[in-house]
Amino acid sequence: MRVLGIDCGSQRTGYGVIESDGLQHRMVAAGVISTDRKAPFEQRLLAIAGGLRRLIEEQRPEAAAVEDVFYSANVKTALKLAHVRGVALLAIAEAGLRVAEYSPLEVKTSVVGYGRAEKSQVQRMARALLGLPETGGPEATQSEDACDALAVAICHATHEATSRRLAGTEPE
Amino acid sequence: MRVLGIDCGSQRTGYGVIESDGLQHRMVAAGVISTDRKAPFEQRLLAIAGGLRRLIEEQRPEAAAVEDVFYSANVKTALKLAHVRGVALLAIAEAGLRVAEYSPLEVKTSVVGYGRAEKSQVQRMARALLGLPETGGPEATQSEDACDALAVAICHATHEATSRRLAGTEPE
Repeated sequence: MRVLGIDCGSQRTGYGVIESDGLQHRMVAAGVISTDRKAPFEQRLLAIAGGLRRLIEEQRPEAAAVEDVFYSANVKTALKLAHVRGVALLAIAEAGLRVAEYSPLEVKTSVVGYGRAEKSQVQRMARALLGLPETGGPEATQSEDACDALAVAICHATHEATSRRLAGTEPE
Repeated sequence: MRVLGIDCGSQRTGYGVIESDGLQHRMVAAGVISTDRKAPFEQRLLAIAGGLRRLIEEQRPEAAAVEDVFYSANVKTALKLAHVRGVALLAIAEAGLRVAEYSPLEVKTSVVGYGRAEKSQVQRMARALLGLPETGGPEATQSEDACDALAVAICHATHEATSRRLAGTEPE
């Protein structure tokens, strides 16, 4: 199963595409869509939508996953993020894909096995699960946003495989 | 000047298109894009984006305006709204238009002349400014969401005309 994970942000939107059977995961692509801080907000949304559409077109994922909006920190930031998330969900729906949504707790539990894991632990574990070196490796994986996106993709691949196993159908 | 106003909502997104020289306003189109409550959220975003794109294609506005997100009420509702707003801003940017954003206070002041006006007063005044009857008239204008959208469009037309007059250029 080929899964796209997206880590939304108005300045940097991370993405990660993995191939996975739910147990073994392999990174296919990862990176960040950066936007111009000085550009009007709607232009930044346009850049993010364009980047995600190209990515989906090139990588042809079968499923996509994003994290829930986390709003305990700052309402203004959360609202900005929600705009970007709306655009990301739209790009996914336009490609005919369903969106799976996970809370930060679910991602942490799924990737690290511990819901209160630090962000850095999640990123390190995502790298390890994909067989990437702890430091170095492909430049795309150096970005925290890309690693966060890969973690969401891993979370979804694991959940999907588990539900299929429980339903008695093997993952593709 | 032809202005599109949008009143974002995940269930009902109101829209209104007016022709205006900043003083005289005429309604060109108004209505609501409704989405299926039971559909997945991304499908509802897809319906809103599709509806707005068709509307912009048909009506060819020269400018578009939306209200700021109002989040004092309920963070969860505001976050949902922000997703829709992101999609609306994207549709506007895709059409090569700039987005003007106004606070509820600015819309009220501009349309009613009083920043603490009730929502119903704004809607009634928007109808009056467009020469629509107080009750009845085109079916599209019966919806509160469409009236809110028309109010935002009037607010923008008025602001634009004022800035142009101040800059010494007459409105088109």
